Amino acid sequence: MRIALDAMGSDHYPVPDVYGGVLAARELNETILLVGDADVIKAELSKYDTQGLKLEIVPAAQVVTMTDKPGVVGKSKPQSSMHVGMNLVKGGLSDAFVTMGNTGAAHAIATLFTLRRIPGVKRPALSGIYPVGSGYIILLDLGANADSKPEWLAQFAVMGKIYAQNALGLPDPRIGLLSNGEEEGKGNQLIKDSSELIQRLPLNFVGNIEPKEIMQGKVDVIISDGFVGNIFVKTFEASASYISHLIRDELRRNVFSTLGALLARSAFQRVRKRTDTFEVGGAPLLGVNGVVIIGHGRSNEIAIKNAIRQASLAVKGRIIDSIREGLQQIPDLSTQDE
Amino acid sequence: MRIALDAMGSDHYPVPDVYGGVLAARELNETILLVGDADVIKAELSKYDTQGLKLEIVPAAQVVTMTDKPGVVGKSKPQSSMHVGMNLVKGGLSDAFVTMGNTGAAHAIATLFTLRRIPGVKRPALSGIYPVGSGYIILLDLGANADSKPEWLAQFAVMGKIYAQNALGLPDPRIGLLSNGEEEGKGNQLIKDSSELIQRLPLNFVGNIEPKEIMQGKVDVIISDGFVGNIFVKTFEASASYISHLIRDELRRNVFSTLGALLARSAFQRVRKRTDTFEVGGAPLLGVNGVVIIGHGRSNEIAIKNAIRQASLAVKGRIIDSIREGLQQIPDLSTQDE
Repeated sequence: MRIALDAMGSDHYPVPDVYGGVLAARELNETILLVGDADVIKAELSKYDTQGLKLEIVPAAQVVTMTDKPGVVGKSKPQSSMHVGMNLVKGGLSDAFVTMGNTGAAHAIATLFTLRRIPGVKRPALSGIYPVGSGYIILLDLGANADSKPEWLAQFAVMGKIYAQNALGLPDPRIGLLSNGEEEGKGNQLIKDSSELIQRLPLNFVGNIEPKEIMQGKVDVIISDGFVGNIFVKTFEASASYISHLIRDELRRNVFSTLGALLARSAFQRVRKRTDTFEVGGAPLLGVNGVVIIGHGRSNEIAIKNAIRQASLAVKGRIIDSIREGLQQIPDLSTQDE
Repeated sequence: MRIALDAMGSDHYPVPDVYGGVLAARELNETILLVGDADVIKAELSKYDTQGLKLEIVPAAQVVTMTDKPGVVGKSKPQSSMHVGMNLVKGGLSDAFVTMGNTGAAHAIATLFTLRRIPGVKRPALSGIYPVGSGYIILLDLGANADSKPEWLAQFAVMGKIYAQNALGLPDPRIGLLSNGEEEGKGNQLIKDSSELIQRLPLNFVGNIEPKEIMQGKVDVIISDGFVGNIFVKTFEASASYISHLIRDELRRNVFSTLGALLARSAFQRVRKRTDTFEVGGAPLLGVNGVVIIGHGRSNEIAIKNAIRQASLAVKGRIIDSIREGLQQIPDLSTQDE
């Protein structure tokens, strides 16, 4: 297997990216293609013992930054490491592409310029995988499509099922629609219409699901439009950080509490680890015609290595073929041509 | 001032409701009208020393339950304590109505059967007030309108400003639109269109705001549609509870940590108090033609007393007149007749 890695992706590229690539090559014993400025990558690689590792450098002259506009970067930077890396996948020279870079740009370059959609897919969705309780939950769409249609959400449900089977090893993952109430009939019009469509599909659909139940681990896959999904994830992260800081501040307020805080420090560290998405590293852009894994810009080398492992899982699980076949098996959800 | 209280509102009615009414009558020295089953209220009142307090009982034969459908309860239970209480306000016999009952039912009974809208208001919005950092934030809409239009959100911004001036004493509250990114152009179509409209209004509009910035206290009033607003609040509450439990569990995992947990117990209690909405008690249904304050079903007597205090603030601040005048001063936002 060959996996292309964007060496210019993370906030602190190329350091964690190249290091993560080295770690992945060692752990997985697969070929890792480091895509980006060849001199920079070579210099960075020289820091590590790469003897016996299958590492290759693929030059790319441009770098997509976090401030580049997704709408223009595909045209303005056709030699970016994202563009080049995805074209490796398109041309069959790599089995997957992994990046910690600008999510919107990766989405645009994949969808409009390089890999494009799997035939039958109406809109690709950005997925995410998060530790909750003793397991993981998969969320999509996290932001690829701010305004969505019911047919798109129904396809997200099918793609989410396949991804959960692949990444979590669940034979029949439970799928829920993120809503403001469990009862049927709750939700906005999009949720109501989507619920009706999804009910007709061969899925383990549990219906509407509220944030509280998500935290309780009552579903494996959560479907929403990209606007609501993005706000859900950002609210979870912001709330977790806010409450952790409140508790920490209060623990420091008096002598006994300070002692408590010292004793409790390792507990805080364990909580951070349990809620850390770095253990997974990244999640696929589902629906594009090739495996593309996107991780956080602030990823360290471990997160990047883990993102590459996610890519290898997706390739081994033939996730693209599975989505193509999965979508063919469901009834056509609309007559709209898009 | 006369404030009507739904004695049959909370999950454990009439106990906390009547007790809260007694506490409010004592603290505010205003007349509290207890609306509901007269015998039940009388029996409950006999437990307290009500000497010198201005407490009156207004009989209502029916009770709205938490499982009553908002769409039918206005017709099916015309003698409910909600219906009777709101009609007291409509008829000038009370200055405000306070309930801990079924929010959807209160909204429907207010909007469709009793008080109706302030002239010019397109849609009433359910507001909420939450402690964040050292201050408070006001959110609307929390769920009255799952599907909204830009003109409605623009009116919510105007009503939110007036409510923040009234309840928080801020002369020029900062108003933000809940979105998936700060940058102009982020958001779904509703947010983009609403942003354009709100920019033209005489408001201290800070533009799009992300969950993280809300927790940092960067705005005073947050505007969203009722679906997203409801999910935001529920995600915040669920995340706070989830993270608190994770930290607590981890604190208990070993001997040192257990000691830490014991010492830290008071810190946890203070955090709970700092994030507790009971300090405020309730928030208005903004846009109906009369002061209606709605609180949590699980409220205790203190929360209910505080909700009644919110009602007295709204009455003193002439919030209904202020909204009517505020809406008249802004340019007509649409030509649609609704």
